[in-house]
Amino acid sequence: MTQPKKAVILLSGGLDSATVLAIARAEGYDTCALSVSYGQRHVAELNAAVRVARQLGAKLHQQLHVNLDAVGGSALTDRSIAVPEGGEASGGIPVTYVPARNTLFLSLALGWAEVLGARDIFIGVNAVDYSGYPDCRPEFIRAFEALANLATKAGVEGAGFKIHTPLIHQTKAEIIRSGTELGVDFAQTVSCYQADDQGRACGRCDSCRIRRDGFRAAAIPDPTRYQP
Amino acid sequence: MTQPKKAVILLSGGLDSATVLAIARAEGYDTCALSVSYGQRHVAELNAAVRVARQLGAKLHQQLHVNLDAVGGSALTDRSIAVPEGGEASGGIPVTYVPARNTLFLSLALGWAEVLGARDIFIGVNAVDYSGYPDCRPEFIRAFEALANLATKAGVEGAGFKIHTPLIHQTKAEIIRSGTELGVDFAQTVSCYQADDQGRACGRCDSCRIRRDGFRAAAIPDPTRYQP
Repeated sequence: MTQPKKAVILLSGGLDSATVLAIARAEGYDTCALSVSYGQRHVAELNAAVRVARQLGAKLHQQLHVNLDAVGGSALTDRSIAVPEGGEASGGIPVTYVPARNTLFLSLALGWAEVLGARDIFIGVNAVDYSGYPDCRPEFIRAFEALANLATKAGVEGAGFKIHTPLIHQTKAEIIRSGTELGVDFAQTVSCYQADDQGRACGRCDSCRIRRDGFRAAAIPDPTRYQP
Repeated sequence: MTQPKKAVILLSGGLDSATVLAIARAEGYDTCALSVSYGQRHVAELNAAVRVARQLGAKLHQQLHVNLDAVGGSALTDRSIAVPEGGEASGGIPVTYVPARNTLFLSLALGWAEVLGARDIFIGVNAVDYSGYPDCRPEFIRAFEALANLATKAGVEGAGFKIHTPLIHQTKAEIIRSGTELGVDFAQTVSCYQADDQGRACGRCDSCRIRRDGFRAAAIPDPTRYQP
């Protein structure tokens, strides 16, 4: 077989998923990026995904829409719940948790992978410098991989879907160093939970704090555009 | 606790999910029906879901939208693939299979259940008189239940999500008898893969054939409205 293998990469437009896209490309996959518009607070993230997919040479970039804002229950999908600012959460899972989000995203990636004939799905979950979300843990990923092979026609026929999580045990600084080596332009990415329409970060939310600390620890200049 | 427990019921508008809604109500749950518009060929099914939710006294009826037609890969979401007619498929999983559909539906149900504080999810899958879809089998359901308890904040906190599949080992005739006893008006339901805009069934697809044979075996008059 001389054709490169296809892989589906979940691409939010943030720092982690951009790095994952670069890793999948470096591993020789034809990269099919999937972004999900789910009623999140801002469009800056999806605009960033478009730029990142282009910058990193994704072969396809699919955008799917789900109106999770009708369900609510998270500061990211319900504007009546404020995004927390000002440092470490008081413990536990924060209000930016979106119920079942990664299960949903992986389901969409799985369906598209099956249609494309891809067997490899990449997701930028991280269980080190993260917000404590349950659906970023290795045990969740393993359970989804098992499910994928039971849930699908391709799985039943022996496809052997694999969920790749190259960042899962890395610190934010390590991710930033990997991405930098692989040519990711982090200035194009948006991690902030409440970026403005121009994609400028608030600098105060959990996600901004983790990202800024990561650049500092990696000793790499932070290219993030912050709100004035 | 005197409040009835809430349950989320996946409601397609077909015969099976209507029966499941009636079963959940008979078990004493406050029923929260969830219908998913996913780019299927016809709107008759979703219109049927609205009627069924009303007829069976659902407390809530949420409709979510996902543009799976952008992904395609199934006769139900891609109009360039014809729905097979004329009896048993030649073996294997038919082209009406929608990649990862029940994984997606259960993900949406799980997220909504978590927001509602519900721990019980009902789905009308059936592994007897069915089309051979992999995501209707007991092993798939068990794997999803395990995933649900790893994937969510409520699961991690010990919620113990349960996926109820009351129809999984029933024949179509048994389902029709159960539904009839519980007061389901099957004339309101639409099972056909290619119903017209008035909800009238083609009478030729796999789903129509299984449904018609079920009424015959149950010795209950078939109230389905067929296309002329």
